[in-house]
Amino acid sequence: MFNKYNVIVVGAGHAGCEAAAAAGNLGSSVLLITMNMGVIAQMSCNPAIGGVAKGQIVREIDAMGGYTGIIADKSTLQFRMLNRSKGPAMWSPRSQNDRMRFAEEWRLTLESLPNVDMWQDTVKEIIVENGQAKGVVTSLGIRIAADAVILTNGTFLNGIIHIGEKKIGGGRTGEKSATGLTEQLVSLGFESGRMKTGTPPRVDGRSLNYTLMEEQWGDEKRGRFSYTDVDIPAKQRCCWITYTNDKVHEVLKTGFEKSPMFTGRIKGLGPRYCPSIEDKINRFAERDRHQIFVEPEGFNTVEIYVNGFSTSLPEDVQLKALRLIPGFENAKMYRPGYAIEYDYFPPMQLDLTLETLKVKHLFFAGQINGTTGYEEAGAQGFVAGINAHQRINDLQELILKRAESYIGVLIDDLVTKGTEEPYRMFTSRAEHRLLLRQDNADIRLTPMAYKLGLVSEERLLKVNKKIENSDSLVNYMKQNSVSVDDMNPILEEVESSPLNQKMRMFNLLSRPQINIYHIAKADGEFDELLKQYDDETIEQAEIKVKYDSYFTKEMEIVNKMKKMEDKEINPNFDYNSLTSLSIEAREKLLKVKPRTLGQASRISGVSPSDISVLMVHMN
Amino acid sequence: MFNKYNVIVVGAGHAGCEAAAAAGNLGSSVLLITMNMGVIAQMSCNPAIGGVAKGQIVREIDAMGGYTGIIADKSTLQFRMLNRSKGPAMWSPRSQNDRMRFAEEWRLTLESLPNVDMWQDTVKEIIVENGQAKGVVTSLGIRIAADAVILTNGTFLNGIIHIGEKKIGGGRTGEKSATGLTEQLVSLGFESGRMKTGTPPRVDGRSLNYTLMEEQWGDEKRGRFSYTDVDIPAKQRCCWITYTNDKVHEVLKTGFEKSPMFTGRIKGLGPRYCPSIEDKINRFAERDRHQIFVEPEGFNTVEIYVNGFSTSLPEDVQLKALRLIPGFENAKMYRPGYAIEYDYFPPMQLDLTLETLKVKHLFFAGQINGTTGYEEAGAQGFVAGINAHQRINDLQELILKRAESYIGVLIDDLVTKGTEEPYRMFTSRAEHRLLLRQDNADIRLTPMAYKLGLVSEERLLKVNKKIENSDSLVNYMKQNSVSVDDMNPILEEVESSPLNQKMRMFNLLSRPQINIYHIAKADGEFDELLKQYDDETIEQAEIKVKYDSYFTKEMEIVNKMKKMEDKEINPNFDYNSLTSLSIEAREKLLKVKPRTLGQASRISGVSPSDISVLMVHMN
Repeated sequence: MFNKYNVIVVGAGHAGCEAAAAAGNLGSSVLLITMNMGVIAQMSCNPAIGGVAKGQIVREIDAMGGYTGIIADKSTLQFRMLNRSKGPAMWSPRSQNDRMRFAEEWRLTLESLPNVDMWQDTVKEIIVENGQAKGVVTSLGIRIAADAVILTNGTFLNGIIHIGEKKIGGGRTGEKSATGLTEQLVSLGFESGRMKTGTPPRVDGRSLNYTLMEEQWGDEKRGRFSYTDVDIPAKQRCCWITYTNDKVHEVLKTGFEKSPMFTGRIKGLGPRYCPSIEDKINRFAERDRHQIFVEPEGFNTVEIYVNGFSTSLPEDVQLKALRLIPGFENAKMYRPGYAIEYDYFPPMQLDLTLETLKVKHLFFAGQINGTTGYEEAGAQGFVAGINAHQRINDLQELILKRAESYIGVLIDDLVTKGTEEPYRMFTSRAEHRLLLRQDNADIRLTPMAYKLGLVSEERLLKVNKKIENSDSLVNYMKQNSVSVDDMNPILEEVESSPLNQKMRMFNLLSRPQINIYHIAKADGEFDELLKQYDDETIEQAEIKVKYDSYFTKEMEIVNKMKKMEDKEINPNFDYNSLTSLSIEAREKLLKVKPRTLGQASRISGVSPSDISVLMVHMN
Repeated sequence: MFNKYNVIVVGAGHAGCEAAAAAGNLGSSVLLITMNMGVIAQMSCNPAIGGVAKGQIVREIDAMGGYTGIIADKSTLQFRMLNRSKGPAMWSPRSQNDRMRFAEEWRLTLESLPNVDMWQDTVKEIIVENGQAKGVVTSLGIRIAADAVILTNGTFLNGIIHIGEKKIGGGRTGEKSATGLTEQLVSLGFESGRMKTGTPPRVDGRSLNYTLMEEQWGDEKRGRFSYTDVDIPAKQRCCWITYTNDKVHEVLKTGFEKSPMFTGRIKGLGPRYCPSIEDKINRFAERDRHQIFVEPEGFNTVEIYVNGFSTSLPEDVQLKALRLIPGFENAKMYRPGYAIEYDYFPPMQLDLTLETLKVKHLFFAGQINGTTGYEEAGAQGFVAGINAHQRINDLQELILKRAESYIGVLIDDLVTKGTEEPYRMFTSRAEHRLLLRQDNADIRLTPMAYKLGLVSEERLLKVNKKIENSDSLVNYMKQNSVSVDDMNPILEEVESSPLNQKMRMFNLLSRPQINIYHIAKADGEFDELLKQYDDETIEQAEIKVKYDSYFTKEMEIVNKMKKMEDKEINPNFDYNSLTSLSIEAREKLLKVKPRTLGQASRISGVSPSDISVLMVHMN
């Protein structure tokens, strides 16, 4: 009943939505299939976007024409730039979001894309012919043909929800799970595994005593994710912070014998850096309290997300423990926390394009690849959507480099090293993180997205203008000095040592106590000049100046690595013919099929001497 | 883990939401349990509220302090007063609604009620002790105690979705069904049955050609359901009308052999007056076309509800047939239509309070009683919520009479006659429909609701004022006349015979061509007087005058019946001791346990002579 589509996307979560939008925007006809069109783009866990490293990913998606940042901006309850006190490489945007608005905005965005159709159904099978995906079969028995298929099944594949000793089938609480697809993929030779994630209870905000908690407001001068002009809600909402204590921990411990985590009923590994509260008190027994973020679920709803209290202990233990937290004495629960186990496919089975190595034109994105986080999912979906389109049109694939984006790091890590527990992005995972900042995602990526056809010329020109203007500001600061008399009073104020002679603005700005506006205060002409630029350009110039030497050093390293990173390997190279490679290296290289020498060097089990063998052979 | 509640409501659809709100507003502590707090108050079928007879029910709920009217007003896409060309007893308000807004407003309303708690879970069992409901057990194994339990399970009890030959378990498409509860109730001695209902496909509005359809806008001067001040959305949206044709019917017929309706796979009976399109072309073979209402699902979404095309034929047949409808040539489907079969409990097992006869303090409301329609469900939920509160506090029960409300007709019909197919309200079901108008629901019911404590004194005073003011307008018209010279030019205009001498306004207004403003046009003093009153009061006065003789006659009938309607029977009366009753009458009377002689007289199988026997015995 359907005509053939170019791309079928299975699942309409954060990955699926970005995938459908990207492929559609590039010109592919897309069918997005979801089990329930009423619950598209759910924030299944916390009502927030971004955070450390994750915020950078959102900026990168946005810089390339994806939507996560726009949707987040449109549904922002409050916005904070985290780590402002640290260097700009650490600055990380994060927003609290209205869960319903977020989902609604995504739904409306998808509806606005002319190439994206939707169909409510459950995919039961991938049609594979001659090792290539050719479409899907749904639970209604409909065969839908396509040139490529992207799977973004999230936690739905054989999902099982655990609360204490109870097990309930479902992809999210109150929803169904999806069966059949894992089994087919395994029969095709894919390796599957189980992972676990969890979510905290939701409570009735009217039952909390906020006077016992610390208020946490967003930034006064509100930032945003998107480089585009998005209408941001005028209102903000407050969040709160409170803490667990010994008594809370004691009560939680009474549930341990019924914990699906500790009794071995859950076999999948959970996200190490987003542990359940029982994990935290178990692993960090020395800590007598843990922070709890009390987050509203929307502008109008009273429902509250108890961030930091993820748990799969029995619901009565959850409630009893919750009520010992300051402010939660009379808490009423709306929904219990739970753990969910689901199937994933170890991502070393993928190419850097997110196409599977086993089945051509089949792409995986999001939690199905063993990641956690909306942002990680969205990024993968975005890349998979692009590459599906590029692949079926014999166009240049998109492989983002580790030195140019967190998304590149994410995918390279997944594909090259695999993951056995839910993979979350951290700044520490990016060796070139000084270069991968939230302030320059547009500079790093928008030109590439323009070439792909994902962003308008207008956006490219805007980025070029930002580069040009910030460079001209930097040059001005290199060429001009401030006088001793003008500057010293300000230096005194900020407790920076006084000048003995006039000093180049560029050099002065490298002092940690000094920002660009201090200099403008001392120099009327410079002050006038700044007024011609927008905040973003000025910030960019300031960062360029302040961290100039670091960036230069970092670029040297990148360039040194470049030779290896750019040295391509034929993915079908017969490593077995190179007997001087270690056996382990041969196995791993054959499995991962690295695209470059750089990628090969990161495979666990491939030693520097193996790399030398490869280098010698290739030259 | 829960303290005992006064009332537990199971299910958060139209019935459950009204039930929880009513019991909570009366002062009961209420726990509303729903399988998924993300999908509260869904409009599972058409995105509209009201219509013939149904609109009156909504006005009645509103007049008594329920919320359906308010929520509908807040989410109105367009509003029309149907049957304006007929007498005011037939005037029926109807709104198209934004599905998401409707659900969201209900959710926010529930959150605003201090006595209503919510819990996401599935009820598996009713705790019954000594023939009385004492609480529930959930799928998590939680026992929650309560003084009363209201079941509003909708289509979820053992729900099975049918599309062509495929069967999918679920309470709605994409959602789970609820199992276990029917089985327990049957083990307690309840009789259960199967019913069926259906819904049409949803399509992508961007794929339709509206130029081939007729536009249908709402009333220019927009009405509303609620007697309270509600902010109504400023925008309106257009609907469209198109028609099926022979070709559409031919294609649909090709699916008949796979139709779950015609092949006997569906055993439950469907709603006679809301038939599927296959039913329509089967039963009305002589008709060469059927009307299709093309209704947007919301202000912003492009999703369209294809009203009039309810079907459970195979999805490919649905699409093929749809595309032969003018304007649908390139239609893309988002979700297929489907039929759903579910368990209901024949409502003769209920008292007029909606308490079950078998288990005390257990109430049923909505589709579980074999009804169809949001309005019918909401009304029952509202009454059940009130009566649960009244029952556990030994307060006066609420039994609405047939002569005072459609809700009274609805419940009396259900309880007294039962229903074997989904029961839908019609004006023809109400023998006193002349009195049960949308314009006087407040006059009929608000005073009673005030006594119950469900509406404020302010609302009562407003109603009293409306009565007083409209009466004084009526009296004015009885006492004052218009002159021949002033009136005749207007009469000529509207083609009504001229006056020979001055005439009482009251008598003049009874002419069908004349409305109250015609008279005001002729009489400056009256015109000035009218300006002092609001539209509703003027309308009320006009209706009172125009239909005065009808109302008087109708009231005479009501008063004649009153003797029987008011003659109470002890529900535990031993009919077997009255051997002069027919055996069938004895059986039926014992089953229904009528509250009054009037109710007894409506029981099928109880003859007028049986009633005479009862009357003789009772006097």
